[in-house]
Amino acid sequence: MLPTDGSMVRPISRGLTLRALIIWFILLQFIRLSSGAKTRHFKWEVEYMYWSPDCIEHVVMGINGQFPGPTIRAKAGDTVVVELTNKLPTEGVVIHWHGIRQLGTPWADGTAFISQCAINSGETFHYRFKVDRAGTYFYHGHLGMQRSAGLYGSLLVDVAEGEKEPFHYDGEFNLLLSDWWHKSVHEQEVGLSSNPFRWIGEPQSLLINGRGQYNCSLAAQYSDTNSSQCKLRGNEQCAPQILHVRSNKTYRLRVASSTALASLNLAIGNHKMVVVEADGNYLQPFKVNDLDIYSGESYSVLITTNQDPSKNYWLSIGVRGRLPATPPGLTILNYQPTSASKFPTSPPPVTPPWNDYHHSKMFSKSIFALMGSPKPPTSYDRRISLLNTQNKIDGFTKWAINNVSLALPPTPYLGSIKYGLRNAFDQKSPPENFPDNYDVMRPPINPNSTTGSGVYMFGLNTTVDVILQNANALSDNVSEIHPWHLHGHDFWVLGYGEGKFSAKDEKKLNFKNPPLRNTAVIFPYGWTALRFVADNPGVWAFHCHIEPHLHMAKLLYKNRGR
Amino acid sequence: MLPTDGSMVRPISRGLTLRALIIWFILLQFIRLSSGAKTRHFKWEVEYMYWSPDCIEHVVMGINGQFPGPTIRAKAGDTVVVELTNKLPTEGVVIHWHGIRQLGTPWADGTAFISQCAINSGETFHYRFKVDRAGTYFYHGHLGMQRSAGLYGSLLVDVAEGEKEPFHYDGEFNLLLSDWWHKSVHEQEVGLSSNPFRWIGEPQSLLINGRGQYNCSLAAQYSDTNSSQCKLRGNEQCAPQILHVRSNKTYRLRVASSTALASLNLAIGNHKMVVVEADGNYLQPFKVNDLDIYSGESYSVLITTNQDPSKNYWLSIGVRGRLPATPPGLTILNYQPTSASKFPTSPPPVTPPWNDYHHSKMFSKSIFALMGSPKPPTSYDRRISLLNTQNKIDGFTKWAINNVSLALPPTPYLGSIKYGLRNAFDQKSPPENFPDNYDVMRPPINPNSTTGSGVYMFGLNTTVDVILQNANALSDNVSEIHPWHLHGHDFWVLGYGEGKFSAKDEKKLNFKNPPLRNTAVIFPYGWTALRFVADNPGVWAFHCHIEPHLHMAKLLYKNRGR
Repeated sequence: MLPTDGSMVRPISRGLTLRALIIWFILLQFIRLSSGAKTRHFKWEVEYMYWSPDCIEHVVMGINGQFPGPTIRAKAGDTVVVELTNKLPTEGVVIHWHGIRQLGTPWADGTAFISQCAINSGETFHYRFKVDRAGTYFYHGHLGMQRSAGLYGSLLVDVAEGEKEPFHYDGEFNLLLSDWWHKSVHEQEVGLSSNPFRWIGEPQSLLINGRGQYNCSLAAQYSDTNSSQCKLRGNEQCAPQILHVRSNKTYRLRVASSTALASLNLAIGNHKMVVVEADGNYLQPFKVNDLDIYSGESYSVLITTNQDPSKNYWLSIGVRGRLPATPPGLTILNYQPTSASKFPTSPPPVTPPWNDYHHSKMFSKSIFALMGSPKPPTSYDRRISLLNTQNKIDGFTKWAINNVSLALPPTPYLGSIKYGLRNAFDQKSPPENFPDNYDVMRPPINPNSTTGSGVYMFGLNTTVDVILQNANALSDNVSEIHPWHLHGHDFWVLGYGEGKFSAKDEKKLNFKNPPLRNTAVIFPYGWTALRFVADNPGVWAFHCHIEPHLHMAKLLYKNRGR
Repeated sequence: MLPTDGSMVRPISRGLTLRALIIWFILLQFIRLSSGAKTRHFKWEVEYMYWSPDCIEHVVMGINGQFPGPTIRAKAGDTVVVELTNKLPTEGVVIHWHGIRQLGTPWADGTAFISQCAINSGETFHYRFKVDRAGTYFYHGHLGMQRSAGLYGSLLVDVAEGEKEPFHYDGEFNLLLSDWWHKSVHEQEVGLSSNPFRWIGEPQSLLINGRGQYNCSLAAQYSDTNSSQCKLRGNEQCAPQILHVRSNKTYRLRVASSTALASLNLAIGNHKMVVVEADGNYLQPFKVNDLDIYSGESYSVLITTNQDPSKNYWLSIGVRGRLPATPPGLTILNYQPTSASKFPTSPPPVTPPWNDYHHSKMFSKSIFALMGSPKPPTSYDRRISLLNTQNKIDGFTKWAINNVSLALPPTPYLGSIKYGLRNAFDQKSPPENFPDNYDVMRPPINPNSTTGSGVYMFGLNTTVDVILQNANALSDNVSEIHPWHLHGHDFWVLGYGEGKFSAKDEKKLNFKNPPLRNTAVIFPYGWTALRFVADNPGVWAFHCHIEPHLHMAKLLYKNRGR
């Protein structure tokens, strides 16, 4: 049975009712006194609670009794103030505002050991930052694997008063995607840090807005597996949020991925999607049947409800880039007034084969900035090449960049640098390159890996090129996807390529209309070229957004130069 | 099959081998240059690890890869320095040195939010304190329920060079007792803090020196349950440490209980025990068949190996005071040269019925100080009565004292008082009494309970009497055992009684030879009278040593007066 209408979300109406108009008229007097930009206060308590994200009860990290945490909605130019109280009994906590550049507020970036000390149990910390640009963002924990424990939520920024988006839509939905394990993150962390190493395995469930189904399937009748049909009334914590639409309208779907591990593909039965935004930047619109989305990325897509209105349609997410062992995450696109509990007549869209990297690369290479977007500087001041490898250090399995695996120092970098604490972290910068003769297809037997806490230092307004270079992991014939996320900045994605980046690849780079992003993927055995301007003084993490990879120390930094 | 000899511990020999004598002779020159008292340095890392305390693998909090943590052995007058590094990814940590009075070093007491901030992830803290008195002590975590997660170990202090214990023994064994749950303490904490409240239930296993058996029994052949006989070789993490003795000798058994919940009873087949020490204080020796020991207590008992040397004997621990749902913890007393793998011919000693409180009271009332021990002042300066009740506050189940449930403030008391931070905690002291008409047998419907962070303030050298008053819990006909532990001091246990303490009970108190302890129990529906001298400036916890009760906020303090 499909859930009935009880708990379903409605699109946020863009029209105004009469009553709202009257309130608006009264409020107008007050609003006229202000500049338009507002300060939006939130008072949050982070705590553990029992929750059933996928119909199985577990301990989840929630905010104010909600999972996912409350959605922040603001307008470009607003100031957001989050008064965060840590109600966890023994753990510290921080929250990172993913995609918010924190221009001039590096201390509000919410990265433990980097921008701040963890907020201790019982303490309250005030995050105060400006959301300077409209877009689809999210927030999440950035200490240990607390993101994977459930500490995340949406942060949606509308255009400023009087501004318009460069596309039209009649309503919108917000889909925050994640993956979910039944083993506690504490135990996952122990396994990853153990010798012998214990991998966390594939997630038990995929969640859409914190809702999935583990012990049943919404689409069991179409499936050839043994899963039983879900019997949900709609008010369960694991009941899907159904997308109610009307015929012949355009809807914006905001999609963000806070997964710990899974690269995802999203598709809607019978409906094409027009991709218009990525990570808070407008794109040259392009049409797709399905959308690849990696951890740390966000997109807006437009759909037109031009299909048979007497039917409902599946929205499905599935795993890419790893042999999947997780059933798809599902919800329903419901054409009103058709009953939401009516089954779609076709099975859910099938996720492309997990190792069809060609499909993924075609998608990534279709992304261009909307005409009129900021263009990259025509040349770089400095280029660093970052080799991604899995290594063993003292028997422990680690991820490393140029053979250095980051060990976060107990004293946060930002304070250490501000107060000149020279012993707080390695003063020597990590290597900017890897040996020319490094074979990315075959890991050398002795990679001389070490741990370190050094940072890359850039003078203000330096234009930096980063060549992210993928390689073989510890064993032959294994190379994984890594979505790299930069804090405090966007970068231009200049291009993707195969094998080791070399001089001949230079001419393939796109300087004309590369998209601005805060997250970009490197494909197996490939390279990705990025350019950014170091124009936001602070100490900023740049890391693979896969939570266990981060826990296994794959991270590096950018620091304010003189 | 009983474990073979591979992993077994030997008693610490009190004789010296020839080789040791030679080394001793050489070292003597250096030792003569010193005062006798030493500084003993320990470098510890606290981390999670996989371990199988009861043959089932779980995540355990260990120190330097060991569970229980390393034993500290020192001599009276030594200074112990523990350089503690927190290797937990997200949690703070502290260690309390249970029974060590911290004379003049209140900042080394290791109580989170009281004597110090929790040591944050990655940080190192130096505990430095004097062990001024010989005795059997232990140490454990004192943040959240980290003790129950496995953060404990033994701290044994021998008499100073040239001093003698007031009893003779030929060898000794150390038994640190604990209880063990398969559910993680993180999840236990969530349940206790939830509404509706979820109780942690009875422990899955009892551990002796961190070793128990969940999926099998060492004594299955004597048991009428379905448990199967353990097949242990002796080198497993859950294999019992066997006590190897020789015939016609006297052995000292040091016994300490770090249980989270269980009150225990210890007995050895065919052997009586002479109790000689409690909590680091010598007792008037008395003989028992079995020993009651509550969480937070320690004892030394002497046994004489005067039984048939061709046999082995069980040492058994079982649960008291709660309807037990946990099999006994077992090990073997092995008369050498009899093989340790030979089964005892009799079944393990049977723990007295859990609700035979008469038995327990008789034991507690048999404890007197050794002649010549310090006597209590003949009168008190101030008396406070502390009513122990379970209450509901805003729907949450809490423990309270005089209807105030302690909420620890984020800033530690010791620093707050030192630096005059008047907003850091409630400046008003909690009530020193409860209403005269309070019926300890029937909880009132509206107990007006609140949370608070106030402390009791005592002028230096005040003699304080504390009447611990037990009462009914939330439901009728339930009253639980609470072992109360005072930090920074010992107290004299003046007496135990039934019902509500009243003027007529005064004359029952023992001022002649009351034992000095740091932990004393209150029996169901009873009272316990204590006296101590507030002679150690600092901020000190005084609390029920049952970990979930502590987590449910049953705690109070003593503070330095002017």
